Amino acid sequence: MDSLKKLQDIKVAVDAVIFGYFDKKDLHILLIKRNVEPFKGGWALPGGLVLDDENLDDAVKRELQEEAGIKPDFLEQLYTFGNTGRDPRNRVVSVAYLGLVNPSYHELFADSDADDAQWFSINQLPKLAFDHQKIIDIALKRLRTKIQYQPVGFNLLNDEFVFSELENLYTTIIGKEIDRRNFRKKIMSYGLLNETSQFKKEGSGRPGKLFTFNQEKYKELEEEGFYFEIK
Amino acid sequence: MDSLKKLQDIKVAVDAVIFGYFDKKDLHILLIKRNVEPFKGGWALPGGLVLDDENLDDAVKRELQEEAGIKPDFLEQLYTFGNTGRDPRNRVVSVAYLGLVNPSYHELFADSDADDAQWFSINQLPKLAFDHQKIIDIALKRLRTKIQYQPVGFNLLNDEFVFSELENLYTTIIGKEIDRRNFRKKIMSYGLLNETSQFKKEGSGRPGKLFTFNQEKYKELEEEGFYFEIK
Repeated sequence: MDSLKKLQDIKVAVDAVIFGYFDKKDLHILLIKRNVEPFKGGWALPGGLVLDDENLDDAVKRELQEEAGIKPDFLEQLYTFGNTGRDPRNRVVSVAYLGLVNPSYHELFADSDADDAQWFSINQLPKLAFDHQKIIDIALKRLRTKIQYQPVGFNLLNDEFVFSELENLYTTIIGKEIDRRNFRKKIMSYGLLNETSQFKKEGSGRPGKLFTFNQEKYKELEEEGFYFEIK
Repeated sequence: MDSLKKLQDIKVAVDAVIFGYFDKKDLHILLIKRNVEPFKGGWALPGGLVLDDENLDDAVKRELQEEAGIKPDFLEQLYTFGNTGRDPRNRVVSVAYLGLVNPSYHELFADSDADDAQWFSINQLPKLAFDHQKIIDIALKRLRTKIQYQPVGFNLLNDEFVFSELENLYTTIIGKEIDRRNFRKKIMSYGLLNETSQFKKEGSGRPGKLFTFNQEKYKELEEEGFYFEIK
């Protein structure tokens, strides 16, 4: 390694694709406005270089705190982007993460490391710095696949919710209508939901029964997986 | 980035977990015998530092060629391991890959970068260098999940095969018996197999019909996914 040390000049960064779920809106993504060159003043994913004494997961959490003031409800490694030429300054290998938050519980706050932090609809993204559009495309594909075989993202709902809110979460993430009857049947068959004795009135329809998640079952399915076949 | 350049001292490497499928044997993994310190003389995953002008995928292919003389039939990024302290020499972030080969078509050949290259049963692995056992554990889990929703690894079979060989591939990768009748029904329902008019005799049983893969359908399912629910 000593002989290679002087040969290799590659930096390691982390970037985060954080999805925000707003009830009855398109899926959103957190972007920050860059305050340094290159792409100064342009929008980009939150992220930055990893510190020498810092694990990758800690680096991405720190960057999210510094650039947007948030701590995601769900965060996992997505993919590592390392092609030559993806950063005009220096070879940078970026370990990208995928995260989810419920924006109602997270006020954005751009600290010193960014000029601004905002939610953008995935259908109205600005032009992005570096290869960040490609990273977002891959993150969205992963999220849409993942939600079909793992109960990811259910923690974006409030603790108590009506069934239509869970349906909306799926419809929003998948980005298209789903077979609602089949979806309800499947979800109920997994024993993931606990009925409460409470109801919630929405609009002019009948009040909907409030549900909570069975946390034990949720963890079990996170580990073992399920399958919804939403197509 | 200029100010950070001197601050960051992290190297980027690639490592590969290459699974080999031998008919009627346990799943195997390719290991190389290290010829440099640390862990000199010990077994490890093939891999090494990325060159400055080389993409990550190219780096792992080069290392596999140099250390074991092979080119995998299937290769994809697995996960990036970057915790501090995982290499005693220097902070090294390793982008790990998962690959599959049919060893009958790949003779191992340890070139100058390793003292030996061999297949080991996943049930009889030697003590491994660095955090490579952990990388293998995660690769195995990924492969076992993946094969349930994507037709990965079917290219480990010969071009023409009897159905029991496909069953064996699944049983070997999953590491336990499967519901054969249900499996056959599912596989056939996806239209993935073409029947040939040829038969192959194995042991004392009736000759089995030879199948080939419908490559078009294979590609389609690789993209869209399926679900086998082998449990």
